[in-house]
Amino acid sequence: MNTDEQLMEKIISLCKNRGFIFQAGELYGGLSGIYDYGPLGSLLKNNIKNLWIKKFVEERRDTYLLDSAIIMGEKALTASGHVGGFSDPLVDDVKTEKEYRADHLLEDAGINPEGMSIDEMSQALKDNNILSPEGNKLGDVREFNLMLKTQLGSSSDSSSTAYLRPETAQGIFVNYKNIMDSMHPKLPFGVAQIGKAYRNEITPRNFIFRLRELEQMEIEYFIHPDDWKNQFDYWREEMNEWSEMIGIDMNKLYEVEIGEEDRAHYSERTIDFEFDYSFGQKELFGLAYRGDYDLKKHAEYAKAKLQYTDPHRGETFVPHVIEPSMGLDRTILAILTSAYTEDEVDGNTRSYLALKPNVAPYKIAVSPLVKNKEHIVEKANEVFGILKAEFGNVAWDDNGNVGKRYRRQDEIGTPFCVVVDYDTLDEDHADFATVSIRHRDTAEQERISIDELKNYFKEKLSL
Amino acid sequence: MNTDEQLMEKIISLCKNRGFIFQAGELYGGLSGIYDYGPLGSLLKNNIKNLWIKKFVEERRDTYLLDSAIIMGEKALTASGHVGGFSDPLVDDVKTEKEYRADHLLEDAGINPEGMSIDEMSQALKDNNILSPEGNKLGDVREFNLMLKTQLGSSSDSSSTAYLRPETAQGIFVNYKNIMDSMHPKLPFGVAQIGKAYRNEITPRNFIFRLRELEQMEIEYFIHPDDWKNQFDYWREEMNEWSEMIGIDMNKLYEVEIGEEDRAHYSERTIDFEFDYSFGQKELFGLAYRGDYDLKKHAEYAKAKLQYTDPHRGETFVPHVIEPSMGLDRTILAILTSAYTEDEVDGNTRSYLALKPNVAPYKIAVSPLVKNKEHIVEKANEVFGILKAEFGNVAWDDNGNVGKRYRRQDEIGTPFCVVVDYDTLDEDHADFATVSIRHRDTAEQERISIDELKNYFKEKLSL
Repeated sequence: MNTDEQLMEKIISLCKNRGFIFQAGELYGGLSGIYDYGPLGSLLKNNIKNLWIKKFVEERRDTYLLDSAIIMGEKALTASGHVGGFSDPLVDDVKTEKEYRADHLLEDAGINPEGMSIDEMSQALKDNNILSPEGNKLGDVREFNLMLKTQLGSSSDSSSTAYLRPETAQGIFVNYKNIMDSMHPKLPFGVAQIGKAYRNEITPRNFIFRLRELEQMEIEYFIHPDDWKNQFDYWREEMNEWSEMIGIDMNKLYEVEIGEEDRAHYSERTIDFEFDYSFGQKELFGLAYRGDYDLKKHAEYAKAKLQYTDPHRGETFVPHVIEPSMGLDRTILAILTSAYTEDEVDGNTRSYLALKPNVAPYKIAVSPLVKNKEHIVEKANEVFGILKAEFGNVAWDDNGNVGKRYRRQDEIGTPFCVVVDYDTLDEDHADFATVSIRHRDTAEQERISIDELKNYFKEKLSL
Repeated sequence: MNTDEQLMEKIISLCKNRGFIFQAGELYGGLSGIYDYGPLGSLLKNNIKNLWIKKFVEERRDTYLLDSAIIMGEKALTASGHVGGFSDPLVDDVKTEKEYRADHLLEDAGINPEGMSIDEMSQALKDNNILSPEGNKLGDVREFNLMLKTQLGSSSDSSSTAYLRPETAQGIFVNYKNIMDSMHPKLPFGVAQIGKAYRNEITPRNFIFRLRELEQMEIEYFIHPDDWKNQFDYWREEMNEWSEMIGIDMNKLYEVEIGEEDRAHYSERTIDFEFDYSFGQKELFGLAYRGDYDLKKHAEYAKAKLQYTDPHRGETFVPHVIEPSMGLDRTILAILTSAYTEDEVDGNTRSYLALKPNVAPYKIAVSPLVKNKEHIVEKANEVFGILKAEFGNVAWDDNGNVGKRYRRQDEIGTPFCVVVDYDTLDEDHADFATVSIRHRDTAEQERISIDELKNYFKEKLSL
């Protein structure tokens, strides 16, 4: 068994060595809190995105996809409250001038900072004689806005200040009118968006958990206010179903009701879906009932009407909103943590990723048993071509011996290895040639006729 | 016939009214050069991205996907030459202090600015007595760096300066070593990436053509230097095939050889694929032979070895690169321009988007002939369910009369409309019920049995 720390180290090293995730700018010393997804990580990420769009947009009749810009203007983010209030409490080491998160220092000292004001945190640090991690006195706590800022245009007057959006949600709210005017949806309906968001974290940490550049998958589901309790329960179910579908260990997933004192003031109910990461139980998804807060704020600041008129009852009102919000990077870390497994095969420890086939970067790996027999290589190539045309992400692997290839494919979570061997050719009367299929999780093998391969995998991979 | 200006206006208004593309931040007055993709635009964009990944990654054996961060550090972009050289020539109206692109003012006056230095532009403006569009004198031309800058972390010392990447390509080059170390590819191989890039254009214009936030699809194809001519020709073919595949009007696509004086100094050959947009023939794609310029620069600045050792010949060298580079937004504008058609049906002018089924936001629209006959609505719902489960993006349309629905689906490019009518129910002996299928481009109709629908569309939609 691994300690939690060992597990995290193994996952990080697997991600780097096998092409899942690299530290961004590593060649130049690295950018803190920013990561690049390598070849296998990109495939994994893409699979998750496509499944999400399939489940929450394509298979539904009431949800629209949106792809709004990452850069947002100052007015929109003032209305949403981010210019004024999207901040972390910071405190300086008075000697070294290094900056720390005041809430983290309090937590580390066993004090719960939730709900404390800036002044209360300053007081709590003093009352408990809390020093900086370097052992020096701390200054006063101050607010630090987490948005990344930039300037559009060449003059640097404040009118051209813009921000990298802190969440994808606001891109949906500011397009409410556009969507109403173009798509004429009837309540209830959803708008779904996948995209990057940015938070200038002072202490990014825990690999891809607390990032400065992150990716979100968010839905704003617009409803009649009377309907919120039912809809909340419905989306809670949907989020559980989604978690299970992509291979998150349901025994490590906890629904945490957020109490009134910790909820945003406009929310009558919020649930955090917390996952048991190796560094502790932390937020993975959020489900919030946001009321009509966002649309009302934008209507006020933009002097616009953001309403809905019921075509039957004639009633006009501001729709309320249920928001299922999912972090894509945190999802990937939860999937990897759920999938990472060690067992013993043939007396040796092996590690493998027990990924669900629907998210696995490669669905199948195809190998010739040996590299120096032309007929075997040719046949393996033929099988590879057939499977690749049908299933897309299929790997070719002819390095080292077959045992090593299995281990390599195990490590990256490929559910099936197909091997073309001497028996394949022995039986080569066009229709009856068979190949060996080796299963990742059980390490067991079976023989299947080449003719049946496509149907065999169609069934196995639609899980 | 439309004038070019009318055509552009019609496309922009179609995009806004039918949910393809909205001005970003429109609610607050709009952000110049930034657009949000609405429900139909997002589906169109997603289709193009998935087709690109299918063609250039999944169907190939030698290309890896990458998803590197948008934020890049100062060192990497200094090495790539962007911090020093990624700039436009700007000039001020001395009276109003408004800024203009010097090269655009020269072009407008019929002078070709290509290859001119900053000083030469200043001189050319003076020699030709060129004034600002407001009729005032102009100052001296200066360089204006086009990268959008931001600050990471809370202190504002220059070490935390970072940029929104000006192109996706550099994210590939800085990961060359990571990909070699994790995937161990053999030459030739490609790394493909889709993602956002940013350019602080002073005069964004022509709708989604010249943007501040844009999306690119780029491949860096690493080769042996001896191989470049063959590979260049190969990728030229691939880009033509791609253009045709997604429905770009090949009669409006031109390959333009870039002469030595206009090529980047390190490129021995560059072709621009220009498209005949309504505002003129402008760059859509680029294909460049970049030699070993980028890897050498990064190796030099990062003091790293970015090389390749041929496993057979033992030769060690810096790979050369062929770069097929495609702008996603420009692709969408070219597709829309190619697809926009007006003709006469039943004595009335109709407009439709002759989109290829593979990119169309909705593949099929399903309608009940009338809304008030329960059996018809029920049957239509059943057909809708069957088609949606199989083909994903299928629309339900029961607004207004059938003629209006056809026009609406024509306008957004839905290739097929399926209508459940009285005849469907008349013949309802389980197996023989038929529906009407109406074809967008010809406006012709045929009847197909419900049982055959899936196979019918499988064939039609795989075009």
